[in-house]
Amino acid sequence: MTGPCAPPTFQEMWRDLLPLGRHPGSGGYRRYAWTGADAECRAWFAAQAGLRGLRLDVDRNGNQWAWLGDPADGDAVVTGSHLDSVPDGGAFDGPLGVVSAFAALDELRRRGTPLGRPLGVVNFVDEEGARFGLACVGSRLTAGQLTRDRAHRLTDGDGITLPRAMEAAGHDPDAIGADPERLARIGAFVELHVEQGRALDLSGDRVGIASAIWPHGRWRFDFRGEANHAGTTRLADRRDPMLPYAETVLTARREAELAGAVATFGKIAVEPNGVNAIPSLVRGWLDSRAADRASLDTVVAEVEKAARDHAAAHGVDLDVVLESRTPVVDFDHALRDELARILSRDGGRGTAPDRIPVLGTGAGHDAGILSAGVPTAMLFVRNPTGVSHSPAEYAAEDDCLAGVAVLADVLEGLVDR
Amino acid sequence: MTGPCAPPTFQEMWRDLLPLGRHPGSGGYRRYAWTGADAECRAWFAAQAGLRGLRLDVDRNGNQWAWLGDPADGDAVVTGSHLDSVPDGGAFDGPLGVVSAFAALDELRRRGTPLGRPLGVVNFVDEEGARFGLACVGSRLTAGQLTRDRAHRLTDGDGITLPRAMEAAGHDPDAIGADPERLARIGAFVELHVEQGRALDLSGDRVGIASAIWPHGRWRFDFRGEANHAGTTRLADRRDPMLPYAETVLTARREAELAGAVATFGKIAVEPNGVNAIPSLVRGWLDSRAADRASLDTVVAEVEKAARDHAAAHGVDLDVVLESRTPVVDFDHALRDELARILSRDGGRGTAPDRIPVLGTGAGHDAGILSAGVPTAMLFVRNPTGVSHSPAEYAAEDDCLAGVAVLADVLEGLVDR
Repeated sequence: MTGPCAPPTFQEMWRDLLPLGRHPGSGGYRRYAWTGADAECRAWFAAQAGLRGLRLDVDRNGNQWAWLGDPADGDAVVTGSHLDSVPDGGAFDGPLGVVSAFAALDELRRRGTPLGRPLGVVNFVDEEGARFGLACVGSRLTAGQLTRDRAHRLTDGDGITLPRAMEAAGHDPDAIGADPERLARIGAFVELHVEQGRALDLSGDRVGIASAIWPHGRWRFDFRGEANHAGTTRLADRRDPMLPYAETVLTARREAELAGAVATFGKIAVEPNGVNAIPSLVRGWLDSRAADRASLDTVVAEVEKAARDHAAAHGVDLDVVLESRTPVVDFDHALRDELARILSRDGGRGTAPDRIPVLGTGAGHDAGILSAGVPTAMLFVRNPTGVSHSPAEYAAEDDCLAGVAVLADVLEGLVDR
Repeated sequence: MTGPCAPPTFQEMWRDLLPLGRHPGSGGYRRYAWTGADAECRAWFAAQAGLRGLRLDVDRNGNQWAWLGDPADGDAVVTGSHLDSVPDGGAFDGPLGVVSAFAALDELRRRGTPLGRPLGVVNFVDEEGARFGLACVGSRLTAGQLTRDRAHRLTDGDGITLPRAMEAAGHDPDAIGADPERLARIGAFVELHVEQGRALDLSGDRVGIASAIWPHGRWRFDFRGEANHAGTTRLADRRDPMLPYAETVLTARREAELAGAVATFGKIAVEPNGVNAIPSLVRGWLDSRAADRASLDTVVAEVEKAARDHAAAHGVDLDVVLESRTPVVDFDHALRDELARILSRDGGRGTAPDRIPVLGTGAGHDAGILSAGVPTAMLFVRNPTGVSHSPAEYAAEDDCLAGVAVLADVLEGLVDR
C-alpha cells in the first residue's frame, strides 16, 4: 500500500485550514454551510484528497468522501467528521477529526498496512446547523432521518432557503435525500473529535472512547405580551414577556442542577427590541440534555410548568414548541469491544496511550446519526479547559498526535483482516 | 385672516398619512429618520403647507416648519410634533400632534382670529431615535444639546452614519448644528401628543396639560462570560452571563416597584446567540424613569449593585455604561398658567372640555428639549388603553377632535394679543 510521497503532515494541514472562515474581530470561526467560507473548507478537503491520490466523491447531499480502494466492494471503513462551525466557534470541533483522518491514513501507508477493506475519509456538510437551525443536516439526509421536503423548508436568518443556498453553491437541491445504498457499503464509521468537556483532563488521559451520547432536545419558548412605552406604562398595566422569560431561565438552571442534567438558554429573539419599548415577544430557546430520557423529560416538564405559571402571573401567553429531539445513542458494543482489543494488542507502538477510558457525552455528532444504521464508534481527544464552541477551544498538539496514533491503530486493526 | 378654501379636514389628513411607512406584516409603522418612509411623510407635510398657502421652511437640521406670518417678526407661536416612529410603532405618537396643528390653524382661520404673532407648524426630524439610537436628534441639534461632531458619529444598525443618511436624503450634513437665532424668535411652543399612559382614561378626561417630564436614563449592562458548549459543559464549569442577566431583570422590576418608578429591559443582544452555545456576552439595556432624580438614582444604584453581585456569583464580568440621561423637565409655569386662563375663559365654545387636568409623564418629547430655551407646554389626548409604541396604540376620533379644539383655543389665546 503506497501513495504519493510526503503528503502534508498533520501540522501542515492544520496550518492551511486555520485561516479559512476565521473572523478577524472575534477570532472565532464562521464556517456556515454553503457559504464562501464553507466552499473554501470544501476546496481544502478536495485538495487533500488529490494530494494523496484519493478518489473524491460528493454524495447527493453534499457530503464529501475521499476513497482509498473501491467503496463498491462494500464493508468499507470510514473516518472523518465535519468542517463547518457554530457562530464564532473554535478551530478543533470538527476539523480535528478530518485532519486526523487524513493523517491516520498517511500513517497506515507509512506502515505499509495491507488494505483488506475500502478506506474512506468523510466531511459531513452542515453538522452544526448554525445557518439553518437544524444540526447534522448532511448525515441526517443520508441516513433518511430528514426528508427532502422538510430540508427544502429550512431557512436561514436572511430568509434564504436551504435549496437556494445549495444552488448558489453549485449543488443540486433536488437530488438530496436518503442514501441507503451508500450506508449499506459502510462496515464501520469512526469519528475522532475534540472532547467538549473536561472528563479526560480530570482523569489524566489523552484519548478516550465514547460510550454514549446523551438524549437531547431543543424547545422554543414564545412569551407573548404587549408592546408598550417603557416610560409611560405603569408597572401594573404591563404585560412584559421579559419577566417570565427571566424567571424561566433561572428555573431551568435549578431544575437541571436537581436532575444532574444540563439546561441552557443561549439564544433569544426579542420584538420590537427597542430600549424604550416593553417587548411584545420574547422568544427563548432551551437546550437540555441528560444521561437518560426520563431525567431529560423531568427537567423539561418542570421548566415548562414553571414557565406557564410565570407567564400567567404577568398576563403573558406562552407557546412551547419542540424543535428537535435526539434519543440516547449507545454506540455499537461489538465495534467498541473491537477497538478495545485493537488498542490493547497495539500497546507496544509507543505513540498510542496505554489506557483508553470510555466516556459519555452531551454533544450530538454525525456519528450519533449514523449509528442508527452503521456500526459506529467515537474517539475523543483531551480538551484541557473543556471549552468548546468558542474561539478559546483548544487541544495540545501532543494530544492531537496521540489521537492520530490511536485512530491509525484502530483503522489498521479494522482494515487489516 | 383668511386662506385657501377648504383645506383637508382632520379626518382627510389622517387618512392620507395612515398608509405611509406602515409595515404590511406587523401593521406597525417603520418611519425611521431619513428613510424612504420618512421622505414620504415629509412630502405629506410640505403638501399640507402648500394646500394652506403656508411658507415651508426646512432648517439646517432638517426640521420642517410651515409659517403663517413672518417668523422674523419674532415672538412666534409654534405647534407641532414629529412624524417618525419607533420600530412597529403606532399611528398616533407624533403624527397626531402634526395633524392637529394644521387642523387647529384651519380652525383659527375659520374663526377669523386676528394674527398678532407669527404662527408656525413644525415637524421635528428623528424624534424617536429608532434608527441612530439617540432620541430627539432634530430638536437637540437646534437647541445646541447635541454637537455636530457627535451627531456625525451616529450610526445605524447597517453601519450607515447619520451624515451619509442625510446626504442620501438630499440634506447637507455639514450644515447641521445649533440654531439659537431660530429659537430666539419663538415665544411659545405647544406640542399636542397622544397620552402614553392611562391617567386621562382613569380620570375620565379627554385632554390634559403636562406638568413635567420625569427624569430618564438609559444604561447598558454588558455581562461577559465564556462561550461554551451547551451540551458538554458541566453546570459547575459554566460562566453563563444569561443567568445574572435574568436575575437583574427581576431585580429591576422589584426596585422600580419599591420606588414607584418604572424600569424596563426591552432590548437585548446576545453573542454568539446559538441554541447550543452558552453565551459569551449578554448585553441588556435598562430604561428607567421616576418622578424625581433621587428616586431614579436609587433604583439604578440598587439594580447595578444587585447585578454586580449576581455577575460575581456566576464568574461573569459586568460593565455598566450610562448611554443617556435626561433631567426632569418642569414645563414653563407662566405658559401653563396662561393656558389655564385661556381655557377657562373659553368654556363656552362647546367643543373644548370644561376641565383640563394637569399630569406628569415618563415619556421624552421634543417639547422637553425645547423647554430649556423656549417657553413650552404640552397637551395630551386620552389614550383609552394606555398602549403606545405598538400597532395597538389608539385614540378615539372624538377625543382627537377635542384635542384640536383645545389646541385651537390655546393658539387663539396666544396669537390674539
